[in-house]
Amino acid sequence: MQTGSIRRRHFLVGAAGTAGAIATVGAVGVGPAFAQDAKPLPDYAAWKDPDALIVHSENTLETRRGFIGTSGITPNDELYVRNNLSPPGEEIVADRDAWEVSIEGVQDPRAMTVGELRTLDIETVATVLQCSGNGRGLFDHEASGTPWTVGAAGNVLWSGVPVRAVADELGGVADGARFMTSTGGETIPEGLELKDLMVERSVPLAAMENAILAWEMNGERISLAHGGPLRMVVPGYYGINNVKYVKKVAFTENETDAKIQATGYRVRPVGVDGAPDQPSMWEMKVKSWVTHPLMEVETGRIQIHGVAFGGINAVAKVEVSSDGGQTWQEARFIGPDLGRFAWRPFVLAADLEPGTYTITSRATDSEGNVQSEVTEPNHRGYDYSGWRRLAVDVTVA
Amino acid sequence: MQTGSIRRRHFLVGAAGTAGAIATVGAVGVGPAFAQDAKPLPDYAAWKDPDALIVHSENTLETRRGFIGTSGITPNDELYVRNNLSPPGEEIVADRDAWEVSIEGVQDPRAMTVGELRTLDIETVATVLQCSGNGRGLFDHEASGTPWTVGAAGNVLWSGVPVRAVADELGGVADGARFMTSTGGETIPEGLELKDLMVERSVPLAAMENAILAWEMNGERISLAHGGPLRMVVPGYYGINNVKYVKKVAFTENETDAKIQATGYRVRPVGVDGAPDQPSMWEMKVKSWVTHPLMEVETGRIQIHGVAFGGINAVAKVEVSSDGGQTWQEARFIGPDLGRFAWRPFVLAADLEPGTYTITSRATDSEGNVQSEVTEPNHRGYDYSGWRRLAVDVTVA
Repeated sequence: MQTGSIRRRHFLVGAAGTAGAIATVGAVGVGPAFAQDAKPLPDYAAWKDPDALIVHSENTLETRRGFIGTSGITPNDELYVRNNLSPPGEEIVADRDAWEVSIEGVQDPRAMTVGELRTLDIETVATVLQCSGNGRGLFDHEASGTPWTVGAAGNVLWSGVPVRAVADELGGVADGARFMTSTGGETIPEGLELKDLMVERSVPLAAMENAILAWEMNGERISLAHGGPLRMVVPGYYGINNVKYVKKVAFTENETDAKIQATGYRVRPVGVDGAPDQPSMWEMKVKSWVTHPLMEVETGRIQIHGVAFGGINAVAKVEVSSDGGQTWQEARFIGPDLGRFAWRPFVLAADLEPGTYTITSRATDSEGNVQSEVTEPNHRGYDYSGWRRLAVDVTVA
Repeated sequence: MQTGSIRRRHFLVGAAGTAGAIATVGAVGVGPAFAQDAKPLPDYAAWKDPDALIVHSENTLETRRGFIGTSGITPNDELYVRNNLSPPGEEIVADRDAWEVSIEGVQDPRAMTVGELRTLDIETVATVLQCSGNGRGLFDHEASGTPWTVGAAGNVLWSGVPVRAVADELGGVADGARFMTSTGGETIPEGLELKDLMVERSVPLAAMENAILAWEMNGERISLAHGGPLRMVVPGYYGINNVKYVKKVAFTENETDAKIQATGYRVRPVGVDGAPDQPSMWEMKVKSWVTHPLMEVETGRIQIHGVAFGGINAVAKVEVSSDGGQTWQEARFIGPDLGRFAWRPFVLAADLEPGTYTITSRATDSEGNVQSEVTEPNHRGYDYSGWRRLAVDVTVA
């Protein structure tokens, strides 16, 4: 660890004031007691806030529930990280404009540098970035993978070039293309099977309409940890489709046969092998969760707050229950609306008598889809959104 | 310097790729050549990005023009800092909820902790935070103070409690109050004159309608450098009115007689002393500036982009000129609209022949006020917004 001990002084000092909230987060739901976890941040993410993150492993960092605020965006140094492979070396962000991405499956296929992409067009979009396995730790069955609870998600402002502008520049998408397939720039160690390990994901061609090739997140050049110098951003789609250090974008007739697409990231019954005909982890669903209060409060006069999003659709409404889902009250959204693919903080004022309460939230999207109460088990523990297990038990002193 | 050398690894590496842009920023307008400036970041702000900032002094850090992006918000570690006094010690952010603010000039005056404020209500607002002296370096006359060009400004999402909810909780504002007066928590060294040094600012009572007492900025607990644990945020008003580490909010019949209000931050002719009857640095005006390209570009095919805001009003339109203001073309806003008090990134595609161009922008607010061409000199070099001097000279190779 060369840089693992490098941290912001004000966070080290400031941690004392929030220790109560932090120490209790792990007890929520059936997740492990994360507060006992003291793994250091990995080198490539040593600049992140260690107080805000649970380090599951080198390649899996989760935002603590109590750190998800009400500003509407997730700051870069508190955002979760999930890498399928170790990131490339820092040298790839040394000369950002020189990074090349090959564009294939267009009339005039060729490689373009980031510097050239910058000349084509610019757009900014806010999206929920969420790992397919966010909430895996809330399932009853033991699905292999990181036992995320709620913090493998964040809301990010991305800026870059619309993919459709890139395709237009190269004569348009070739006839017969049905998918947009993006390939990551990770190095696959020699001797290992490329198709088994490579990060290459296909999404339906329609997703191109909203997609951007981004070089900026929340106003900063994208860090290596988050896929800089160039990342494919597919609004409304699970994180895995937002390919980091993207080195190729191909418009293809078929989905890639890389394992991560063909059999990985497929929703299937427990015990069943992955196969290309099962639903892929593409569009996200309507979801919300409470971020305050957690565990204990000194007074029953509280502002219950959290975040809500509609996934592929806009979020339209969110309700809060403090009796485990027997009765609901509509909450109020706060702050600016960052658009269809963003999450919105919500708040509901309450005045509770001393006692213990099961507080949860339930969102509805613009198409009338209501967040489910329970998410049925699936082999890999993907796509969790059930409001019952997302609840928190809160004691009012 | 205990922590001054502590920096993010990816920025140290990443700097090489942007060195060209950085090195040229200081040459814009009549400002000094900032690129030669190599002062280290002060301790309380050691966590900021040194590549993104010009360190004028311990208490004045400016965001480099080329680092102002198109995402719509300014990341905390790139945001400017301007302190009138050295900040208090880090201990004030050790137990954030324990910080007290006295509320006076209400029916039931008393002190409230941040913990109690959190129970009252929550709101989030995006505001342009801008130093009164932003652009001072562009005036012809030598006004005393930091020679900021464009980077003593940023756009921030704040979250906290509306001031009106606090006043309501305490029985409402007392009769006869005409101002909201906020006092900072800095320590004034013994033996010095309190009134001469204290940071205490009054704004018209009407500003309360939009004001919040904030504990969160861009999703993070507010750092000491930016006024944590609690900051008064007055949307549409110059930075000086957004009092840091606020320890008192009083609804008063008169403006405070503290020097910073009575004679400081007053717009007056060059050579004239400050006096209470001169305009105070309250509401901000409509303004915009280009952030790309700066100086030189390899190809004339460019996306000219920048930021625009209306100050106390929303921004409605922005035009771009590449011939020094002879002809104008309307630019397009990009990304979500963060509200009346926020800035908006804008972009205009251009295709220029080789040569040298004077590129600038001109914004119009929702009331039809157009950004001025020239800002008349004033003694302290405040309130700069003239588009002529905000222009950049760009050479297309």
